[in-house]
Amino acid sequence: MSKELAKKIVDKMMAEDKFSQWLGLETVVVEQGHCILKMKIREEMVNGFGISHGGIAFSFADSALAFASNAYGRLSVALECSISFAIAVRVGDELICEAKELSITNKTATYHMEISNQKNEKVAFFKGTVYRTSKEWFPENKK
Amino acid sequence: MSKELAKKIVDKMMAEDKFSQWLGLETVVVEQGHCILKMKIREEMVNGFGISHGGIAFSFADSALAFASNAYGRLSVALECSISFAIAVRVGDELICEAKELSITNKTATYHMEISNQKNEKVAFFKGTVYRTSKEWFPENKK
Amino acid sequence: MSKELAKKIVDKMMAEDKFSQWLGLETVVVEQGHCILKMKIREEMVNGFGISHGGIAFSFADSALAFASNAYGRLSVALECSISFAIAVRVGDELICEAKELSITNKTATYHMEISNQKNEKVAFFKGTVYRTSKEWFPENKK
Amino acid sequence: MSKELAKKIVDKMMAEDKFSQWLGLETVVVEQGHCILKMKIREEMVNGFGISHGGIAFSFADSALAFASNAYGRLSVALECSISFAIAVRVGDELICEAKELSITNKTATYHMEISNQKNEKVAFFKGTVYRTSKEWFPENKK
Repeated sequence: MSKELAKKIVDKMMAEDKFSQWLGLETVVVEQGHCILKMKIREEMVNGFGISHGGIAFSFADSALAFASNAYGRLSVALECSISFAIAVRVGDELICEAKELSITNKTATYHMEISNQKNEKVAFFKGTVYRTSKEWFPENKK
Repeated sequence: MSKELAKKIVDKMMAEDKFSQWLGLETVVVEQGHCILKMKIREEMVNGFGISHGGIAFSFADSALAFASNAYGRLSVALECSISFAIAVRVGDELICEAKELSITNKTATYHMEISNQKNEKVAFFKGTVYRTSKEWFPENKK
Repeated sequence: MSKELAKKIVDKMMAEDKFSQWLGLETVVVEQGHCILKMKIREEMVNGFGISHGGIAFSFADSALAFASNAYGRLSVALECSISFAIAVRVGDELICEAKELSITNKTATYHMEISNQKNEKVAFFKGTVYRTSKEWFPENKK
Repeated sequence: MSKELAKKIVDKMMAEDKFSQWLGLETVVVEQGHCILKMKIREEMVNGFGISHGGIAFSFADSALAFASNAYGRLSVALECSISFAIAVRVGDELICEAKELSITNKTATYHMEISNQKNEKVAFFKGTVYRTSKEWFPENKK
């Protein structure tokens, strides 16, 4: 039941999320409080150094944060996020992002996202806190 | 002299920065340790809530960080960035980002970026720290 | 009226705040969304490098965040804070911390704190976001 | 050998670190890139809400960051740290902090610290990045 709801919500989010579509995000695992996504770095994602723009890794993790936190059913929005850049990401790299829940209370929740490349090197670390509104994605699912 | 160098570096960065081009960034002011950029939110930048994806504001500020810190002449890379989201950004919004230098030492520098919309509301706050490598953008400019 | 309430709340907070007392914090200015505090670094505040422990500057700014955000009357608690350390702080240094409000909504607010030393050098930068509960410090003040 | 060096460095740091002594920190495990510390919350550590001041948890994790990163032998200083507060900490609580290394390069390293209480609830999450200077703690240990 909770897994179905998670899938239903993330499918709906992905269908509207034009920027995640542009990024080419694919969902590997989606659960309440947890998800794994993948994407591939394209030429049009590079910055002035010819490597992947820092905003690409951030956006990737930020989508993972949104999916993992909204999958509970309540509309949840990011308040504050921080990212540490460890290793440069290059065109052609295939990235995996895993979102793990650190804590959840009625009003807020905090997640840790790690991004790895195809060599299994960790390229960036992201910590994000969301505000959990009282609005439901599918009010009829709440009993 | 320092203003010319700043312009020369940022022009070179922008010319290669395909993602900032995709974002539609325009430079308003570029100086060593300071810059003002603008951009407009397009349909393809929205997330699953139908508002601008958090990664867009992050990327905008991250480019401002790169321009302000690299404008001194030394190649500088972001280590750690954090962003606070205050107000939702919508399609059609015209954003301004100003980067201000908080501190600079030989090896690192820290910047504060504020993003405002066309109503002059502050929509996001970004703090970023860069590592200043010893590599010069234009080695011939260093005497 | 709002200034009186701010003072009344911060006086009450300081009276109970044993750790801020241990730090030797003094309030210079206290207003809704804004405050200036000062403190002096003592021998017992140093870390393993013989300079002021990073936790001292953090604690100083965290108290400023608490005072500036609670001064509106609603109990507000820190969710997420980040600090950048620019310059080492030494025994005998006299520090000033100013808290400025970046944004405020019904549920959350974000502040930027800057800490300077007696030479007017900026030593640390702090960004903090609070959750504004619906609990009042002085329910009778709310009409 | 590396474990001995780690112990030697952290013993030296703790011996000078008067603030960690005031906090009552005890080392449980100390290794290169990893450590576990414990401490107990005392009356004099509370803030204006009567719960443990946010600066106490921050300081606890910041010491863990310093120990884990310096244990390699090179003097390493925190650049940027962020903390998320999940659950209130109370007088009498016995806290454990574990520092784990997320990444390490020649110049910088990033760590994740988790603080738990005696009920094994996670109370705070800390991400910190250090700059690794070229100065050795014990130059004679370097060959």
